[in-house]
Amino acid sequence: MNMSAIEKLREKFENRFHTEQTFREKYCQAPTGIALNPPDVVVTVRNEQDIVDIVTLCSRTGLPVIPCGARTSIEGQINAPQGGVSIDCSEMNAITDINIEDMTATIQPGVTREQLNDALQNTGLFFSVDPGANASIGGMAATRASGTNSVRYGTMATNVQAARLIMADGSVAKVGSRAVKSAMGLDLLSLAIGSEGTLGIFSELTVNLHPVPEMIISGVCAFDSVRNAVKTVTSALKSGLPIARIELLNIPAVRACNAYSSLGLPKKPHLFVELHSNMLSMAGNVALFTEHVHKHGGDVQLSEDPAEREILWIARHDAWWAFHAFYEGCQGIPTDVCVPLSRLSACIAATEKDIAETGLNAPLIGHVGDGNFHLLLMLHEGEEETSRIQEFLNRLAERALSYGGTISGEHGVGQGKIKWMSAQHETALELMKAIKSALDPLNILNPAKMY
Amino acid sequence: MNMSAIEKLREKFENRFHTEQTFREKYCQAPTGIALNPPDVVVTVRNEQDIVDIVTLCSRTGLPVIPCGARTSIEGQINAPQGGVSIDCSEMNAITDINIEDMTATIQPGVTREQLNDALQNTGLFFSVDPGANASIGGMAATRASGTNSVRYGTMATNVQAARLIMADGSVAKVGSRAVKSAMGLDLLSLAIGSEGTLGIFSELTVNLHPVPEMIISGVCAFDSVRNAVKTVTSALKSGLPIARIELLNIPAVRACNAYSSLGLPKKPHLFVELHSNMLSMAGNVALFTEHVHKHGGDVQLSEDPAEREILWIARHDAWWAFHAFYEGCQGIPTDVCVPLSRLSACIAATEKDIAETGLNAPLIGHVGDGNFHLLLMLHEGEEETSRIQEFLNRLAERALSYGGTISGEHGVGQGKIKWMSAQHETALELMKAIKSALDPLNILNPAKMY
Repeated sequence: MNMSAIEKLREKFENRFHTEQTFREKYCQAPTGIALNPPDVVVTVRNEQDIVDIVTLCSRTGLPVIPCGARTSIEGQINAPQGGVSIDCSEMNAITDINIEDMTATIQPGVTREQLNDALQNTGLFFSVDPGANASIGGMAATRASGTNSVRYGTMATNVQAARLIMADGSVAKVGSRAVKSAMGLDLLSLAIGSEGTLGIFSELTVNLHPVPEMIISGVCAFDSVRNAVKTVTSALKSGLPIARIELLNIPAVRACNAYSSLGLPKKPHLFVELHSNMLSMAGNVALFTEHVHKHGGDVQLSEDPAEREILWIARHDAWWAFHAFYEGCQGIPTDVCVPLSRLSACIAATEKDIAETGLNAPLIGHVGDGNFHLLLMLHEGEEETSRIQEFLNRLAERALSYGGTISGEHGVGQGKIKWMSAQHETALELMKAIKSALDPLNILNPAKMY
Repeated sequence: MNMSAIEKLREKFENRFHTEQTFREKYCQAPTGIALNPPDVVVTVRNEQDIVDIVTLCSRTGLPVIPCGARTSIEGQINAPQGGVSIDCSEMNAITDINIEDMTATIQPGVTREQLNDALQNTGLFFSVDPGANASIGGMAATRASGTNSVRYGTMATNVQAARLIMADGSVAKVGSRAVKSAMGLDLLSLAIGSEGTLGIFSELTVNLHPVPEMIISGVCAFDSVRNAVKTVTSALKSGLPIARIELLNIPAVRACNAYSSLGLPKKPHLFVELHSNMLSMAGNVALFTEHVHKHGGDVQLSEDPAEREILWIARHDAWWAFHAFYEGCQGIPTDVCVPLSRLSACIAATEKDIAETGLNAPLIGHVGDGNFHLLLMLHEGEEETSRIQEFLNRLAERALSYGGTISGEHGVGQGKIKWMSAQHETALELMKAIKSALDPLNILNPAKMY
């Protein structure tokens, strides 16, 4: 800990400078069994200049800086294993511009997705990326978040148009532009998205908005097997249907959600689905989607009632709590992988077999339009560190790779998945390290993460 | 020129090694008035190992390597201002995999977009990116190409899933994965796309395919002003209509296309449009689109006849020839900029005024759904180097920036737009240079471009 830098921060930020242990301990959250290390200091920032000042000071002394927003990341992205200064951006929550014609919003990084969508009421537009938690959009960009809507509207990788980034030396870089596309040089914006605060800190983002569909239909489909559910997804997507959400729940997940949210669904694998289109086209879309479900032996119940829709998606978002209620006394350890759609059924089947053979309780839910699925490993206290669990997670990671996929579809690397980076990327990991060194030679930006 | 490296290449590649001047001169093409510099040597490669061997050899001696495919780039991307070895990838044109379920194709970099679409006949899928020329897909990825379909199906930035890249030291990096999304580390794939061969050379790409729509409707809309045409685009996109192409032609462009392709269109600004949807939804989409056109005082004629559609898009793609025929004795210098949709009308109006005041003939066509427009400056021989033309281009670049846009939407930087990189990117240009230096310390990959 460099006392002179710390003292300067204390002087400058006064009551927004925190060293109290109980306060600092809130800045080292991770639900995945990672050892929690609080930062030495937390500073709450209110504008870009605050971030510039902190980073400039830290860059002179090699003090780590760890940006954070809503602190809902999963793989220890906001932990401070080397101490340093956590920059809390949650009070940088101004929406500075909503541009209806361009369908964009310009925001400070601490704006949450729900806050933005509230502000968009009556504009006919919405912000689509929905990772479940009411995350800050700066954090969502930093971790390349996605979620239920990404099958139709894309992930954070495709929903940020431009950003301002504070670099490791305190300089401010503008990346991207307000134009929809550009062919002027390296795509630094995409490089920053998903870099988990290791290359720069977002101080402003311009994000894409999407038209609120004229009509929304949602519902549930029950299948005799996960395989038939996935086949339905594949064929429906190939037909070009406007599927906005398509979520798989395997039987253990259905059982827990039934109990928690009184859904009364048959004990079969299910798809929760939502279609978005204009009014005149919806009947055609519903007919075509129904055909795809029936072709694969499924039952489908669709509704345009917003109340039923809300019940459905609340139940989906409450899955975490449902699983905890169902497996009483257990703590859920979430993980996710993502594979090509063509390999999804096989990967899920092998994973369900492995779960059974390992003797685990681990319900499965998935953004299956993207080939992405989540497990919540329901474990007893301390169990996440046993070799049985670690070996299961290693097999899951290897399986994702052997099926041509990725070890995380949306949770990110942080500290939790760092051990598999080399297996996934081989040579490319060295390139990532070279870029990190070039842009942050002192390694002050969120050190001990990702690489 | 390092003779020992050159001699080793001659020995290894025998009749695929070329130093004949007439041959080399084909490897320095650019229609934008850039001085043409052929490479010292051209080597035709047939597989990844060939590229690895050349780059490894050149990396030991600091000899520049310039990758190329169909050689249809616009801003001098394939020129060899520092000599060196052009790597001709056009014979690496194998389609190694078409995966119907994943909607992807894995190809060598020399495969052209027309070749891939021919191979996709009867699969129900197509490759969407269409920059006009029958470009190689490796080159399209390297220049981040887009074109008429990008408003609905995205640019090369969003249509490459994974790639193999030969790095400056001859190592092979795998970037991206077969999974639709990933949150495992830096997005090196996006960094490589649009890097114009300055960071690595594509030896394999897995690209996204899209479902052939059940039904296609296309046609023309005439407006009293560009402003009303653009307003129609904005409102139609905001309504969520499945617009696959929406191209603006200003009055000079319409006049030339009328003459060349016998279109018989009224002398007004036009939109050429195409809607893609399933059969049951199309009537609704057509009704809604027509409403948007009428609301802005336009006339619209739509048709589902494939023959009429072909005439329309051939005319659009023949615009280059139409302009040359109309302005006899002139040579067209193409340029493009891209601005936010909300500023597009104003930017076009200011540009048309500037064209008139400068006394230029420069018909305008645009992928207006993206806010992207092209001018073809019809100039007499040698005129492209006059200060009148250079000042006009400077004003156009400044205007794009002042409207929040980018100096190239799709043509790229190459040598032609390098002079504006600093104005557009400011601090971020230094970051690009730092990344380039980190990944290619000897600056052998396509030197004197972009940065």
